[in-house]
This record gives sequence, C-alpha cells and structure tokens, in this order.
Amino acid sequence: MGRWEPDAKGRLERAAAELYGERGFDKTTAADIAARAGLAERTFFRHFADKREVLFGRAGQLQDLLVRSVAEAPASAAPLDAVVAAFRLTGEMFDGRAELSRQRQRIIDAHQELQERELIKMATLSAALTDALRRRGASASEAGLAASAGVAVFLSAFQRWLESDPPRLFAELVDEAVVELRAVTAAPRTRRRRPVAARS
Amino acid sequence: MGRWEPDAKGRLERAAAELYGERGFDKTTAADIAARAGLAERTFFRHFADKREVLFGRAGQLQDLLVRSVAEAPASAAPLDAVVAAFRLTGEMFDGRAELSRQRQRIIDAHQELQERELIKMATLSAALTDALRRRGASASEAGLAASAGVAVFLSAFQRWLESDPPRLFAELVDEAVVELRAVTAAPRTRRRRPVAARS
Repeated sequence: MGRWEPDAKGRLERAAAELYGERGFDKTTAADIAARAGLAERTFFRHFADKREVLFGRAGQLQDLLVRSVAEAPASAAPLDAVVAAFRLTGEMFDGRAELSRQRQRIIDAHQELQERELIKMATLSAALTDALRRRGASASEAGLAASAGVAVFLSAFQRWLESDPPRLFAELVDEAVVELRAVTAAPRTRRRRPVAARS
Repeated sequence: MGRWEPDAKGRLERAAAELYGERGFDKTTAADIAARAGLAERTFFRHFADKREVLFGRAGQLQDLLVRSVAEAPASAAPLDAVVAAFRLTGEMFDGRAELSRQRQRIIDAHQELQERELIKMATLSAALTDALRRRGASASEAGLAASAGVAVFLSAFQRWLESDPPRLFAELVDEAVVELRAVTAAPRTRRRRPVAARS
C-alpha cells in the first residue's frame, strides 16, 4: 500500500458521481476520476478494480451490516423478521442520499453489464444472509426462502424510495414492502377471510 | 438457415451431456459436440451461441410455458397462486430428467461464469413473470413481489428435487416449498397462534 490518503475512497466516489453526472458514465475514465479527486491513478486502483466497481463500492459495507445485524438479532426472532430488521437498519446508508442513488440507478439501468453486476452482488448478499440464518439454526430451505423474501422486500423498498419525492425514510418503506409481501404470500384461506365474513 | 436437421437441438443437447460427463465441460468444444451428434459445426452455432448456452437451451421454453400459464390462470387467482400453478406445470420439463439435471447442476456449480449466466436467466424469467402479472392487473410492486416469491419457491423446489432419491414429482416439491414460504413469511401473530392457544 502507498501513503495514506484521508478518505480516498469517499473522495473517489464523490468525484465519480460528479463526472458521471457531467459527462456520462461512458465518457469517464478511472484516470479522470482520480484527477478530479486530486489523487493518483494508482490510488484509484487500490480502492476499485475498475470504474464500474465505483458504483458498487458500498455493497461490501451493506453486506457486512446485514450479516452482523442478523447474527445479533434476538434468538426468538423468526428468520424473516431478523432479515427485515437488518434491512431497516440499512436506512443509515440510504437516507439523505436519494439524488445520488437515483443518478447511480440511471447509469445501471442504461448498461446491461452493470445490471448483471448488480444481480451478482444481490445474489452474493442473499447467499450471505442464508448463511447467517443457518448459523442461527434455520434449515437450509427455510434460510434460503427467508433470505430471498428479504431481498425481494429490500428491492421493493429501494424502488419505492427512489420514486418517493420528497424522499421518505428507508425503514418506513421496508415496513410497507413487508406488509405487501405478507399480503401477496398469505395462504388463500387468510386472503378470503373478509369476503366470507361479509357473506355470513 | 441451412437444411433442416431432424431434432438437431435435442441431438446437440444429448451429445453435450454425454461429452460433459465423459471428459468434463472444460475439455469439450462446440466442434466435439457437433461431431458426436453427427452434425456440422455450423449447425451447432445455428442453435447455440456457444457451448455454455447448451446448458441453458431450455430457459426460453421454461419462460414461455410460465408466461402462458400465468396469462391463462383464472382471473380470480391471486398473483402468487397464478405463478405457483405455472411452476407446477413445469414438472413436465423436469420429471424423468433428474440425472441429467444433476449433471448440469454440477457443471454450473463448478464454474462462476455459468452461475452468473444462470442468475441472469432467472432475473429475466422473474421480469417476464412480473410483466405477465401486471397484464392481469397487479400493481408493479405486487407483481414484482409475487414473481420474486414464485422464483424463490421454484429454486427451493428445484433444490429439493435434485436431492430427492428416488426423484420425486416436481409439482409435489413446488407445493412443499410454497407451504414453507408461507410459514416463513406469515405475520408474527399467525406464527404465534399455536403457543398462545397452548397456554390458555
């Protein structure tokens, strides 16, 4: 490692966001990003494998936060509740950053390779959550289903959050998405309860 | 297109399965597969972009079957029920082919690029199911959650099916996975019903 640069990673992320906004993702190079951040190009490559990776620089932090939260959830918490509580906490990474997140999403939506990279990050996250739930004693299939359901809730909440204007609190949108997931997956008998009561 | 070869695609798939089993995926070329099937190499490339694609040759058929089933489900069927009924029908593509599917899965599990390709196929499938549900009148978020939940059920059922020996009927395993998903996503009150009754 070279000499220490204070918050080099954050400076590179902010410089990348500026340049992607000004001249577009395709016309920005790693060297441009380093120059804008006032850092050497080799410093860029100590933090990111390429300019695409700058868009996913927080995936590791997100995953660490989630896995730690699931591990620390009360033993009595059901698997999905542990995962949902963990996703609620990720609001600290999102709230206040909606415009940056929208810009990032527009870039990803315009590039198939970035969409694929995002899919891979989400699958890695889902596998890490499955492992964390198994360590809490869930069976393989229960852990896999709860992790998948949790990731579906997260993606639904994230979409709601990107579309909210003014931006709403991320944790509230996680709660709304869980309520909707529960309605969507409720057994037919539960779903039909109201009409049956109305008929009696 | 060149001259018509009876069931060329099926012959190439069977030849590929034989060769992947005999000498491994890495040591098999598209030319080898074509030769084993008694077809010209150019015939191979009319059906598949590369030797990796042979492993995913049925993804389009799977997706078409699912989208058609969802479109044809009774108007009264809830989104998840329509998706699950569609996945039950895909048993016709799986039952009787467990050994071939296990071999295919071993190859995919050993190659990261193939795992990524499979992720992309499943994401494409999930998006197609979301669209099919939206055409039935579901909201964007409801359709997305039901499609994600349905794909999670499918992957769980598929894993159970690969592990079942002797192989069980695919549709039965879809049913088991739905029951488990519903238990995993049930609201806390529903989950606690039994202990509360036991205490009274």
